[in-house]
Amino acid sequence: MQTFNLGMIGGGTVGSGVFHALQVNGDLLAARTGVNIKVRKVAVKALDEPRPYEIPASLMCTDWKSVVHDPEVHIVTELVGGTTLAKDITLAALKLGKPVVTANKALISKHGKELFAAARDCGAPLHYEASVCGGIPIIKSLREGLVGNRITQVYAIANGTCNYILTRMQREGAEFKTVLAEAQAHGYAETPPDLDIDGWDSQHKVGILASLAHGFWVRDEEIHVEGIRDITPVDIRFADQLGYVIKLLGIIAQDDSTRDSSSPRIQVSVCPTLIPKSHPLAGVSDVFNAVFVRGDLVGDTLFYGRGAGKDATASAVLSDLADAALDLKMGTGHRLPPFVSFAREGAVVPHGEAVSEHFVRLTVVDKPGTLARVASILGEASIGIRSVIQPEGHEGDSVPLILMLHDAPAGAVKSAMDRIAGLDVVKARPVTMRVESLE
Amino acid sequence: MQTFNLGMIGGGTVGSGVFHALQVNGDLLAARTGVNIKVRKVAVKALDEPRPYEIPASLMCTDWKSVVHDPEVHIVTELVGGTTLAKDITLAALKLGKPVVTANKALISKHGKELFAAARDCGAPLHYEASVCGGIPIIKSLREGLVGNRITQVYAIANGTCNYILTRMQREGAEFKTVLAEAQAHGYAETPPDLDIDGWDSQHKVGILASLAHGFWVRDEEIHVEGIRDITPVDIRFADQLGYVIKLLGIIAQDDSTRDSSSPRIQVSVCPTLIPKSHPLAGVSDVFNAVFVRGDLVGDTLFYGRGAGKDATASAVLSDLADAALDLKMGTGHRLPPFVSFAREGAVVPHGEAVSEHFVRLTVVDKPGTLARVASILGEASIGIRSVIQPEGHEGDSVPLILMLHDAPAGAVKSAMDRIAGLDVVKARPVTMRVESLE
Repeated sequence: MQTFNLGMIGGGTVGSGVFHALQVNGDLLAARTGVNIKVRKVAVKALDEPRPYEIPASLMCTDWKSVVHDPEVHIVTELVGGTTLAKDITLAALKLGKPVVTANKALISKHGKELFAAARDCGAPLHYEASVCGGIPIIKSLREGLVGNRITQVYAIANGTCNYILTRMQREGAEFKTVLAEAQAHGYAETPPDLDIDGWDSQHKVGILASLAHGFWVRDEEIHVEGIRDITPVDIRFADQLGYVIKLLGIIAQDDSTRDSSSPRIQVSVCPTLIPKSHPLAGVSDVFNAVFVRGDLVGDTLFYGRGAGKDATASAVLSDLADAALDLKMGTGHRLPPFVSFAREGAVVPHGEAVSEHFVRLTVVDKPGTLARVASILGEASIGIRSVIQPEGHEGDSVPLILMLHDAPAGAVKSAMDRIAGLDVVKARPVTMRVESLE
Repeated sequence: MQTFNLGMIGGGTVGSGVFHALQVNGDLLAARTGVNIKVRKVAVKALDEPRPYEIPASLMCTDWKSVVHDPEVHIVTELVGGTTLAKDITLAALKLGKPVVTANKALISKHGKELFAAARDCGAPLHYEASVCGGIPIIKSLREGLVGNRITQVYAIANGTCNYILTRMQREGAEFKTVLAEAQAHGYAETPPDLDIDGWDSQHKVGILASLAHGFWVRDEEIHVEGIRDITPVDIRFADQLGYVIKLLGIIAQDDSTRDSSSPRIQVSVCPTLIPKSHPLAGVSDVFNAVFVRGDLVGDTLFYGRGAGKDATASAVLSDLADAALDLKMGTGHRLPPFVSFAREGAVVPHGEAVSEHFVRLTVVDKPGTLARVASILGEASIGIRSVIQPEGHEGDSVPLILMLHDAPAGAVKSAMDRIAGLDVVKARPVTMRVESLE
């Protein structure tokens, strides 16, 4: 059996996880695939930094260049994180014709286009399964398993921290801040938590999924992002009453009018979204991730698993390593290029034009005529109202007023909300959230 | 771009589905993969048989051999069903060194070992993604996406007809026979329905999944199978009361004691099973399939989608065709063999020794001492009782008595039930079902 030597750059949480995974399951992987992967060297930031799994001192060094340039190293893993050094490492290895496996979503998201071009020019593959939703083999499934499908919709719960917080808020009726603090105490949320809870982590993943599904590169700045900071127990309760749960959802939806076109127009966003309780995505709880993919042939599919963690991430890295080693064994450097731009004329719909249903929660003075004034502003904006809940009972002198709106462009909804916010009977900034029937 | 000619054998529901899929999405597949697949000829049983999608008469013939032997045909699809002619076709194509793509679970299940050997000897790949759970890319996920994992458990809802019937029984409290008759009227169930509702269809799929996960070939006759005919609304109601739903579940579970061994012992069965309502598998409704896979690195994963239907099946066939064509283009006939026997010493646990929890429903005479007599028989067999429900109210002179049993071997439970059935206070054959906590 042929053996390929691995040069690992990065030996922290993910890096040592990959090292450990190869120790315990390397033989199994070799038996299944016919290729053997052996760690030759691990470049780390500091030899004595703490790591969840031990790496023998004899294998470690602090000079990544010596590892990448070692002629006995056949495959390189970039597991350092960040986008600067990680980019240098990746480019250096590709230029030497060595396949690179990375788990770095920020890197792919920010420099994907340049790195894919380098991979093509150098004839060396770049693998990044672990960059999106950890252990879920979603990139392989999109690129290979569903390769025969036009992908019309993707809905992703792509951030475990947010999903954990929302699950607990849903179960316990707790406040966002309380749950966040506990999640931080238990190590389920970072400090500071912004990257997760403000949606930026999801944005990277959703951009990669959108690019793969639709065949043109979606830049981060084209993706509308809202986080979960402003979600309140009241919103969760009203959503529940209406038959919905609130999830931070990555949404990639092709405009119907461009379905058969080679110039797809797609909505791409990350935002708190009401989805029906009965939908399989609604049952995705705690730190789990899931990606719902709708294809024109396959119909509805769902891929569920752990989106983070050293072992789940290692599972994805090992899958990429197997592919990289098989391609080396077979001499098929670019069996499938890391990204194929098959719809160069595709475009992201500007957020203001993105049409969807909306949930609106207003805080209003409980007096006759209030609903009529709100409804009249919506009517003038041609925004239809699907249903209204005006619950009994007061909180001080203001009451909640919940509206479910028919399909309308986000920009029109925002303008209407600006006008509604200006009414003297409206006592707080209106809360609006996207609603997806997922039908 | 290189073009590969496809010789299709079978132009019925699945065959015409694949033909149609290539017409509508062939260009997309080519753009994504760099290989073009062109249908050269379709061998059908009768030129004028009705088919859901039209195939031009100029492409059809009735002589499969001429298609397989056509030197311009590079890849063959076997989509005729059955295990006799299908085997001849597959072997004939492999012997000519041509990759074969099949959707035929019965064929793989019955003749897999022989066909894989032929594929190896002839250096031609055999692909069968569509044979298990239709559009769900579960075979690719097991063989590639999760290749670095020891798979400890697989739980599969692998038959859409059964899941549809159980979902409706659950929702409506309806009788099995009523729902089956309606399902047959709507075309959701075959006539006769035995292959589906007695579990044989699931058996084929579960055998293939077990073989792939554990690396030794599991024969159909080693798989314990029970169907859903005897499930009653009463069982569903009591299960619900206890926090469970009943699903026809394919179960592949490795004995803990053999976890790190190269001689795994695994339970493999298909049977109605109580699973917790809160588990993602419990939310898999109607005709949908799902495969829950637990790996030692990745943790819990779930793959969900349509398990049947011409388009979902075509999605899986197209994925296999892309792989076959890429291997032809690259000259890598056996990049990954269709089946790798990496644990030759593996064995299936005989059903009588398979340990699990059980749900038991007895129909007993409502008089003092009944529970004591039942409990004493279980006690003598060293079977622990986890909980008892003895509901209020009579049905004639007998009442239900529900027991949840702790882990015990299936054989011991059966013997105890035989003894309990012989008690004069027991008025009907005890109903027992497996319980899985899925923890």
